[in-house]
Amino acid sequence: MARQLLGKEVNAKLNEEIKEAAQALKEKGIVPTLGILRVGEREDDLSYERGAMKRAETLGVACRNVALPADVSEEELIARIEEMNRDETIHGVLLFRPLPPHLNEERVINTLLPEKDVDGITDASLAGVFAGKECGYPPCTPSACMRILDHYGIDPCGRRCVVVGRSLVVGKPAAMMLLKKNGTVTVCHTRTKDLPVVIKEADIVIVAAGKAGVVGAESFREGQTVLDVGIHVKEDGKLCGDVRFDEAEGIVEAITPVPGGVGSVTTSILISHVVDAAGKRA
Amino acid sequence: MARQLLGKEVNAKLNEEIKEAAQALKEKGIVPTLGILRVGEREDDLSYERGAMKRAETLGVACRNVALPADVSEEELIARIEEMNRDETIHGVLLFRPLPPHLNEERVINTLLPEKDVDGITDASLAGVFAGKECGYPPCTPSACMRILDHYGIDPCGRRCVVVGRSLVVGKPAAMMLLKKNGTVTVCHTRTKDLPVVIKEADIVIVAAGKAGVVGAESFREGQTVLDVGIHVKEDGKLCGDVRFDEAEGIVEAITPVPGGVGSVTTSILISHVVDAAGKRA
Repeated sequence: MARQLLGKEVNAKLNEEIKEAAQALKEKGIVPTLGILRVGEREDDLSYERGAMKRAETLGVACRNVALPADVSEEELIARIEEMNRDETIHGVLLFRPLPPHLNEERVINTLLPEKDVDGITDASLAGVFAGKECGYPPCTPSACMRILDHYGIDPCGRRCVVVGRSLVVGKPAAMMLLKKNGTVTVCHTRTKDLPVVIKEADIVIVAAGKAGVVGAESFREGQTVLDVGIHVKEDGKLCGDVRFDEAEGIVEAITPVPGGVGSVTTSILISHVVDAAGKRA
Repeated sequence: MARQLLGKEVNAKLNEEIKEAAQALKEKGIVPTLGILRVGEREDDLSYERGAMKRAETLGVACRNVALPADVSEEELIARIEEMNRDETIHGVLLFRPLPPHLNEERVINTLLPEKDVDGITDASLAGVFAGKECGYPPCTPSACMRILDHYGIDPCGRRCVVVGRSLVVGKPAAMMLLKKNGTVTVCHTRTKDLPVVIKEADIVIVAAGKAGVVGAESFREGQTVLDVGIHVKEDGKLCGDVRFDEAEGIVEAITPVPGGVGSVTTSILISHVVDAAGKRA
């Protein structure tokens, strides 16, 4: 049976580090603070917001919430972001997307200062992750993947890595981060032919296809490490990933479960970025 | 014998398109104009500058040159870029790099407006090529590769593509551009194990290793298309690429020669970006 790479194990260590860093800042009179900017009342956003606030609180990070109506004007929203940019007591900002369609998302997002872009959504953060340079922050989900690999001592250097999915929030940044760690990286997507053949080449697979159970036994071999980014609600109300876990578990060397894998680390990564940003300001 | 993918054939068509577009703009009273900003007198820069000016002239694009001393202050250089930003008669700007070490290259480069960044060096252009969105311009060398493929009707869609090299001016943007064309893309580099095995998987190979003749017969098979980005001066004064052309020629289906391949298309791409930028302003 494959070794399970557990979010709770990764979080235990990561949260310890965050708490210590937050405590050290508090002793200097700095309370690391996350500004949360939400437009409208989408259930997904509210749920993520609650989770982030709870995690932040237990780790010694403060939150300041601004909720705006779904019909907020672009100027008003931008003014609120500029306020958070100027406010030296706010170290990072989480802005929920997608924004309502009457807003120019591109323009709104890029109002945010890169050094406060703890969720990695600005062009500056994208350029940073693409160039492999310190500029803004990488998105939280691929960062969570890298943290899991790091926690379990799985080094991409010189190994074949396959990323399934080419989104800007997971697939592409994950590819860049694996490349920075000297992996030989292949990006696959819906137009890839013989996906199982390509996935079998990989020592490390990150599956971010966004579709429930699309990867299974046909794609795996012994010795692989599989990170499953997907999270879907099945008809019976249970959660599942992009990988057919039951099939993979008997074949590969290590795998993240869903739930309890990549997704559970993402929020801690966000909070760690806030503490990092507060530390850089200090 | 492999079919040779010739820069002069690609340029013949591309230059025709550029000339027509430039002519159409002139009829509206707009002369597409490239601002060239050079710091110091590096021989490489001077040579590229002469080539670009000559190509621009034959295609109906004007150039305006500013040459600054190698010890120019950062403020002075930035002021000159801001001047070009404001000048509505300049549509694109070529700024030679690397800048002398006393200058903050990051800061200087990002002064340039993305819409005038025809050489694809700003963070906004990098974010654009990474996100696959219209923002600034992609760097000229990977654009030249894509133009060559397009010219010869070689479609990356659903095919295995391997990029050798992960630089920010060629390898990484080439990977993103192949991905945008729905290729399944693998990026290799100096830490890749069994490079020949990986290259053999590819239908399309872009070699930008930056080292003379590092890829040869051991890496090729029938049916492949090979684009060689390297250009090196041999001991006998002749030019060669990253690929051992004599070996590849007998095996693969199509290949760019060096000289006369990718490099010869790059300048036309730059000029085409200037005309495109002028068209967008019009």
